[in-house]
Amino acid sequence: MCKEVEKMRHTLSHVLAAAVKELYPTTTFGIGPAIDNGFYYDIDFGDVKVSDADLAKIEKKMRGIIARKCVMERREASREEALKWARDNNQKYKVELIEELPKDATITFYDLKDPRSGEVLFTDLCKGPHIDDLSKVEAFRTASSAAVGGSNKDASALVAHASPAFQLQRVAGAYWRGDEKREMLTRIYGVAFETQEELDEFLKRQEEAKKRDHRKLGKELDLFCFSDLVGAGLPLFTPRGTVLREELSELSLGLRGKAGFKKVWTPHITKVDLYKASGHYAKFGDELFMVHSQVNGEEFALKPMNCPHHAQIFASRPRTYKEMPVRYMEATTDYRDEKTGELGGLSRVRSLTQDDSHVFCRKDQIKEEIQTLVSIVRRLYTTVGMNKLRARLSYRDDSDKYLGDPALWEMAQKQIKEAAIENGLDYFEQEGEAAFYGPKIDFMAEDAIGREHQVATVQLDFVQPERFELEFVNEKGEKERPVMIHHATLGSIERFLSVFVEHTGGWFPLWCAPEQVRILTVNDQVDDYVQEIAEVLSGVELEEPVRHNALRFEQDLSNDSLGKKIRRATEMKIPVVLIVGPKDASEKAVSVRLRDKEEKVKLDELVEYLQKLNEDELQG
Amino acid sequence: MCKEVEKMRHTLSHVLAAAVKELYPTTTFGIGPAIDNGFYYDIDFGDVKVSDADLAKIEKKMRGIIARKCVMERREASREEALKWARDNNQKYKVELIEELPKDATITFYDLKDPRSGEVLFTDLCKGPHIDDLSKVEAFRTASSAAVGGSNKDASALVAHASPAFQLQRVAGAYWRGDEKREMLTRIYGVAFETQEELDEFLKRQEEAKKRDHRKLGKELDLFCFSDLVGAGLPLFTPRGTVLREELSELSLGLRGKAGFKKVWTPHITKVDLYKASGHYAKFGDELFMVHSQVNGEEFALKPMNCPHHAQIFASRPRTYKEMPVRYMEATTDYRDEKTGELGGLSRVRSLTQDDSHVFCRKDQIKEEIQTLVSIVRRLYTTVGMNKLRARLSYRDDSDKYLGDPALWEMAQKQIKEAAIENGLDYFEQEGEAAFYGPKIDFMAEDAIGREHQVATVQLDFVQPERFELEFVNEKGEKERPVMIHHATLGSIERFLSVFVEHTGGWFPLWCAPEQVRILTVNDQVDDYVQEIAEVLSGVELEEPVRHNALRFEQDLSNDSLGKKIRRATEMKIPVVLIVGPKDASEKAVSVRLRDKEEKVKLDELVEYLQKLNEDELQG
Repeated sequence: MCKEVEKMRHTLSHVLAAAVKELYPTTTFGIGPAIDNGFYYDIDFGDVKVSDADLAKIEKKMRGIIARKCVMERREASREEALKWARDNNQKYKVELIEELPKDATITFYDLKDPRSGEVLFTDLCKGPHIDDLSKVEAFRTASSAAVGGSNKDASALVAHASPAFQLQRVAGAYWRGDEKREMLTRIYGVAFETQEELDEFLKRQEEAKKRDHRKLGKELDLFCFSDLVGAGLPLFTPRGTVLREELSELSLGLRGKAGFKKVWTPHITKVDLYKASGHYAKFGDELFMVHSQVNGEEFALKPMNCPHHAQIFASRPRTYKEMPVRYMEATTDYRDEKTGELGGLSRVRSLTQDDSHVFCRKDQIKEEIQTLVSIVRRLYTTVGMNKLRARLSYRDDSDKYLGDPALWEMAQKQIKEAAIENGLDYFEQEGEAAFYGPKIDFMAEDAIGREHQVATVQLDFVQPERFELEFVNEKGEKERPVMIHHATLGSIERFLSVFVEHTGGWFPLWCAPEQVRILTVNDQVDDYVQEIAEVLSGVELEEPVRHNALRFEQDLSNDSLGKKIRRATEMKIPVVLIVGPKDASEKAVSVRLRDKEEKVKLDELVEYLQKLNEDELQG
Repeated sequence: MCKEVEKMRHTLSHVLAAAVKELYPTTTFGIGPAIDNGFYYDIDFGDVKVSDADLAKIEKKMRGIIARKCVMERREASREEALKWARDNNQKYKVELIEELPKDATITFYDLKDPRSGEVLFTDLCKGPHIDDLSKVEAFRTASSAAVGGSNKDASALVAHASPAFQLQRVAGAYWRGDEKREMLTRIYGVAFETQEELDEFLKRQEEAKKRDHRKLGKELDLFCFSDLVGAGLPLFTPRGTVLREELSELSLGLRGKAGFKKVWTPHITKVDLYKASGHYAKFGDELFMVHSQVNGEEFALKPMNCPHHAQIFASRPRTYKEMPVRYMEATTDYRDEKTGELGGLSRVRSLTQDDSHVFCRKDQIKEEIQTLVSIVRRLYTTVGMNKLRARLSYRDDSDKYLGDPALWEMAQKQIKEAAIENGLDYFEQEGEAAFYGPKIDFMAEDAIGREHQVATVQLDFVQPERFELEFVNEKGEKERPVMIHHATLGSIERFLSVFVEHTGGWFPLWCAPEQVRILTVNDQVDDYVQEIAEVLSGVELEEPVRHNALRFEQDLSNDSLGKKIRRATEMKIPVVLIVGPKDASEKAVSVRLRDKEEKVKLDELVEYLQKLNEDELQG
């Protein structure tokens, strides 16, 4: 089950602890697991302050230990032995962990041992698994012979043969057991890969990601802000950020509108009765934001999703087969009670504006509806420049956790697969990954620096129509139950923006850039000519991918030097900068400065130029 | 202070009680005040059921009393006398009212007395005032000599000279003191006017209003619905209603967008700290919908307004005089904890989508900003066909409840008045009606049946910029405090829709009609030609008053008879119905059926025809 690289990362956390123990003998250890791309260890340093500055020293010590070609030895111990060991070594966190183990648990220790001297460098209560031998394991051979880190020449030499590609990265605070009422420990993070190339690649990507961090760019490009008075996870969007939200939302609504989806509007609060009826309350009731009326004590909930609301609209009047499928869409904000972990960003927010859709259709309409939705997803992600899409088709397995008629499941899964094949999707199938209410397709999109993000989703639902007793009258005059299809194209606009800002690095495509064009003047002799240009630009509307998208342009007529103006426009990543000097005025032209080139364009060709620029960009 | 007509209405409530007492001797009386257009009395009938069917009998008795030319006699009584009276007469509600009067209150009674016999028909604990003499008072003279109601000829004859123009209208349930834990009383409503003409006018308008009732039309035209599972006061908008919301919102946003307003986006919940900082919490804290996190116990509130949020965006980065005024707009939903009184309609809802704007400007920019806003308001209400607008300019008085520098108030009030005059507004001024934070303009619009509705508002605010310490750097490099201007054009879209649906009677202007055009076929021989028409219509976009407004049309190709199809289209109040038969197909024409006329239009002239129809409508 456990991959070699994960074992290696886990083992490195023990090596980290061994190094710390040697450098800071009185420390107390928490836990040290492998994580994505690396490992960490939570350590109580007592009164000693350990910071990023100490990492080089610790890392060097780790490399020294590795150079000794230590082995990891597993041994079992009784509960009493384990507790005695922990108490004798003043390891109170380990005492706590051992005491919580089930009475009949097999307790295991791992000793990090120098095979030549027999010395045990570090012993840890640990379930494993680990790599056995730090010198032998494939994972530890560095493909590059370059010594990494450390300045001790002898150690480096030894390391060369068996150096796992790792790096300690940073120190952070972490509450023991994640409980803010418990001790604050020091967490040391490291990254580790099987080869130096992979590490280098990771570090490069990490560096690139830092530059693209949407929280940093959000501030620099004035896209959104947070207020302590409003609260964590509740971004406020400035005019620039609101343009992005709206253009993306328009794109998504436009694609669905063309496919027959009609906008509806539902309130943000509801009596919990709605979620009791839908079945959500039993599953997620304690995750709802509860709303309380001080006037008369009534209780409501903030909606975390829109499907039950849309089902109410479907149910608001009798339906016949003639109007099926009924397709609703809404760009509305849901509220989910996320922990206030990742602050200042849009990746995890409490206010999620979903571009949500629901189809109510007949069983024999499933495939066609899915095909429509799949093609909307492909179209949208191609348009935003993320055309590397993978789709996971999630099916039921044989367990009894799935609701609804198995024959219906089978038919629906078949339709999903056919839709995927016929759309030429890059897909894979996973049994047992379906929601309890129906099979689904989840889409993953790759960004510009190779990271994959879960984005759109298409989910069948056999349960809500049942619970809300939705029905329509069929050709025979009988009542028939529709199937519901949930779909979000962007998902949450906030989360998509966090991806999109980093994907583009803040250089948004022309069509959705908050400020698409900025006019800069060389001096104030050209102010009249600028008005002429402005008039031309006022008439420009881009028609793709959002129709009637009136050009958004600004003017910088300040007295600052041209250099300063250009710098300002570049900092704001304005896609098209028009530089206007007296010569341009007399020639009725402008100097167009794009991100990668500069060219002269006649004023009477400017509209066409901008239209073509947009089209070229959209062609990729 | 009290108008004669109000006194008359109040007196009629006593006459009503006297009539009830005679017909139902064991009843217990609550209170009976004058209200807009009439009066009511809350009565405990014990086990007796009284319904609308009983009103004729009661009204007849009232007219008999009036015919006796009774007088109202005021007398003072001691607390003991008053309580004794109430107890002796088993009037427990009056006992309760008397016991709650301040110890030193002057307690007064009114006796309704037959001056000839000296008989007291009804005694009530009452502050008055009343009309003294039912036969003398101007208000009681009917301008029409027709006897109203009642079938007793003798009584009618007597009434003819001194009949107030009144009518009992309906019976409703009402909790004693509005408290749902107290007794449920029977409320009898009456309407009353000084002249029969006024009453007739009122009844006619009431009849017309009933036909236009937006709750009735909302259902018939499939605009919105309610769900018991979602809750009272929380409408859900169907596709048709959502079109109306969006078109109206687009109109409002478009007008403000042209005037330099930029869209922003803010979340629907906030920590209450925001309202503590703004000062709203101290005033309205107990009216907020409180939001509770079950995950970590954090407390939030649903926003009832957006100004503090917008102030946070203004404050999110340093500002200079160069970017003033800063203008934000947002169409966002606020939540207010209204009582669940008026159910099923949009007049009073808990979810209010405001077309809200905030200007942050310099003191010398106030007038120009107000002028802009006033002209936006005029433009919008003219566009929606409600161009009879009145404006109330509300100023401070000398009391100390107003915050902010008096000199600033004076200057601002002067600017408001100048803006009103220069815009040719029909305005009136009211001292003492300003908000505590600044002077304001409220707009009232008259609807098609002569009712006036409070609509748009422009409010200056000197307090919030102070409390949030908003500032910008002026030309001298000094920090300066902006003034804030609150503005809503439509107000709440829900409330405006309740007015607009009744104003139009559901016959919406072409530009915002949910379904603008419907094609009806005479038989199925013309289905191909219908596709040709549909293709033409697909290319139509109306450009006024909302740009790029793609035509919304449907087809009725069913096998039903043409008569049935036309009836259906008329019931849905589709403004343009295209009737297509084989002759039309061969002539490449359509029969256009409008609300008030029918005409033949060539297919190749149809686009122009529709554009002109829209323009003509907008010209009024």
